[in-house]
Amino acid sequence: METIKKYIEENKQRFLDELFGLIRIPSVSSQPEHKDDMVRATEYIVEKLLEAGADKAEVFSTEGHPVVYGEKIIDTKAPTVLVYGHYDVQPVEPLDEWDSPPFEPEIRDGKIYARGADDDKGQLYMHFKAFELMVKTNTLSCNIKFMIEGEEEVGSKSLKKFCIEHKELLKSDVILVSDTTMIARDVSSITVGLRGLSYMEVEVTGPNRDLHSGLYGGAVANPVNVLSKMIASLTDENNHIAIPGFYDDVQEVSRDERNEMAKQPFNQEEYNKSIDINKEVGEKGYSTIERIGIRPSLDVNGIWGGYTGEGAKTILPSKASAKISMRLVPNQKSKKVDKLFEEYFKSIAPDGVRVKVTSLHGGEGYVSPIDTVAYQAASKACEDTFGKKPIPVRSGGSIPIISDFEGVLGVKSILMGFGLDSDAIHSPNENYPLFNFFKGIETIPLFFRYFAEQ
Amino acid sequence: METIKKYIEENKQRFLDELFGLIRIPSVSSQPEHKDDMVRATEYIVEKLLEAGADKAEVFSTEGHPVVYGEKIIDTKAPTVLVYGHYDVQPVEPLDEWDSPPFEPEIRDGKIYARGADDDKGQLYMHFKAFELMVKTNTLSCNIKFMIEGEEEVGSKSLKKFCIEHKELLKSDVILVSDTTMIARDVSSITVGLRGLSYMEVEVTGPNRDLHSGLYGGAVANPVNVLSKMIASLTDENNHIAIPGFYDDVQEVSRDERNEMAKQPFNQEEYNKSIDINKEVGEKGYSTIERIGIRPSLDVNGIWGGYTGEGAKTILPSKASAKISMRLVPNQKSKKVDKLFEEYFKSIAPDGVRVKVTSLHGGEGYVSPIDTVAYQAASKACEDTFGKKPIPVRSGGSIPIISDFEGVLGVKSILMGFGLDSDAIHSPNENYPLFNFFKGIETIPLFFRYFAEQ
Repeated sequence: METIKKYIEENKQRFLDELFGLIRIPSVSSQPEHKDDMVRATEYIVEKLLEAGADKAEVFSTEGHPVVYGEKIIDTKAPTVLVYGHYDVQPVEPLDEWDSPPFEPEIRDGKIYARGADDDKGQLYMHFKAFELMVKTNTLSCNIKFMIEGEEEVGSKSLKKFCIEHKELLKSDVILVSDTTMIARDVSSITVGLRGLSYMEVEVTGPNRDLHSGLYGGAVANPVNVLSKMIASLTDENNHIAIPGFYDDVQEVSRDERNEMAKQPFNQEEYNKSIDINKEVGEKGYSTIERIGIRPSLDVNGIWGGYTGEGAKTILPSKASAKISMRLVPNQKSKKVDKLFEEYFKSIAPDGVRVKVTSLHGGEGYVSPIDTVAYQAASKACEDTFGKKPIPVRSGGSIPIISDFEGVLGVKSILMGFGLDSDAIHSPNENYPLFNFFKGIETIPLFFRYFAEQ
Repeated sequence: METIKKYIEENKQRFLDELFGLIRIPSVSSQPEHKDDMVRATEYIVEKLLEAGADKAEVFSTEGHPVVYGEKIIDTKAPTVLVYGHYDVQPVEPLDEWDSPPFEPEIRDGKIYARGADDDKGQLYMHFKAFELMVKTNTLSCNIKFMIEGEEEVGSKSLKKFCIEHKELLKSDVILVSDTTMIARDVSSITVGLRGLSYMEVEVTGPNRDLHSGLYGGAVANPVNVLSKMIASLTDENNHIAIPGFYDDVQEVSRDERNEMAKQPFNQEEYNKSIDINKEVGEKGYSTIERIGIRPSLDVNGIWGGYTGEGAKTILPSKASAKISMRLVPNQKSKKVDKLFEEYFKSIAPDGVRVKVTSLHGGEGYVSPIDTVAYQAASKACEDTFGKKPIPVRSGGSIPIISDFEGVLGVKSILMGFGLDSDAIHSPNENYPLFNFFKGIETIPLFFRYFAEQ
């Protein structure tokens, strides 16, 4: 522990300078004009991995943005840790809401402000520097592999294929990921559950053109009124999802585990205040933490139809559309839910309209048991550095590739993230506290030590 | 009748040339760049009224676009007919859907194609030429007044005030309007009912910003889901409007009148085919003609909220909005309905959201009895020229100024329109058949004759 702290202290400024170098490359995966920046980012990563002590590091091209693979094999009999992260970032728009340029990192109030400061360049770079630290202090106790992709923010489209094609290369005993948050600066946590996703688009068509609402209103089904009724029918008065069969594969979580979850520090009043709502609303019989962590949900992400400009236009619209997504819990299958949704949605379409349902996106949930060697190693590492046992948390979000890792590579992932909810990832003024960055570098080598001691 | 036909035959081409002169002035009331064109149109009208035989014709400025007033008083003891019409037209966009330039009238297949060909320049000009005909053939049997406004397409904002300020000048025994349609080319009809309108905008606000649908979904009320449920609650399973008190002032129409309405030529199958729907949908217990003519309706005219771009964005939106309008039947009061709507809509707002309701626009319905001298005069005139008694029709549309005329001037209106549903008013390729144009000029003098014979 002293060795670790000393090494970090002596190299602090260089660690930051190197991270800033990576942040300055505007590797926005969703914007084609940044295609060259994606390549530059992979070159930078290869260079830094080799400098840190990797035996090899190389760029693999894919149908989308390239993947960087690197490794250091110390002993074929030693356990192997595969570190996963991503070098791509979200778009920065709206630019005028940033207090400093998004790709020119600036330290204010002990935080790094920049796009990617947390998600995921900051969290990824902790692993590079923890790796360097272990190499330079001769404490690396596991083989280490790196798989760094450039499409996480656009759905990891190429990575599953990459995993299938390089199963042998990626062979490992655990996958280690820092791309999630902790509960608070002084309350560390490990994410043990992720929700899956079914993301649908629906279109309701009535008459073949917008009609005059005076000359036709009352005699012709209005697609917006109809869509509203159909959306209303997707949930009942207890905010239970009304799609037949939807809950069939939902695993009920035991009373014991729910009691355990209830111990998480959580203040409903502060939560409501932070998003300015008068009351929390969700499925009857569950707490907010349960509604997000262990229960599925259904949200309209967007809706549109008819006249949406200024003033009054008296039309009976021809069409109405909505994007509707469901978060799934582990054991629910995204494709099956897509089908249940489509069947139900079509079955409730009334006379006078036609309905189209399209699946836009999906992925499976993930759950990590807490009695594994890997989880215990992560838990002990965090306990050492934060002084308290970390809390296992089921996040409401989705990282579909994590469940793909399990499916394709047969390996569980440990989601040991060091971000905070206040880091504003995906938003203007994304930031990452220096405290968390260095705490991560301090914690990761301990994970390797405990994992090797299995 | 022979005199009338002869005069029309001899002056046909000049009548068209004069109308085309008016059409060529692009008097689009909603577009500020046409402000000068509005003035040019009024100058043109004044000139043509004087040429046709008016004692005087002048332009009155208003807070909006000017009003033209003209008159010819033949005998202070004779009855007075006030002709109402409008010289403003709808915008022409999208331009590329026109087969000929909208402000360069062109005759194809016996129809005049141009913006305003029917609505309302074509229908208005019939009155100018019928007036000229009566003056030149010494058959004008009533005093005649003209009130031609330039804001009909934008809500007649200045005209009510104009009426209040010029009550004496506008004194008359009936108001004659040609701004509606007939059932078919060979089935003339007189509009005896118009619906009123309450046009509302609603906004439902949940959290203070768009949230991540994974990290919050299931635990926070989603404004789009909520708005959908609220819209669904506005009507019941019989397509009856569910707002308490909404039907209190609705006059039930007698079985006799409904039987009379049922005699209108109407083919449900053709109707459905023309707008490409598999089945008509509306209030239980009423036919399509009744649903439009004598029953109120509620339509969402537009809805929007959340992410509406390409692909999948996983947000729980902060806001959702809709434009919702109700068509009212005579005796329902628009302002009262606004209030009923607002009270009910706010009362059904669930926890977790705030609701804003704004009234955007409104107007009262109108009904004209058919046992009046004026109606009988119009009916006889149409019977003479079309060979069959015209059918009294309740239109589903709204012309709020017509009910204002009754309220302010204390005079009923006769809606003797010569347009056809196929004239594509407000749309590209607006047109007006020459047959209807000349039939109107032929019919109007007969109305004056029969009205004077009272």
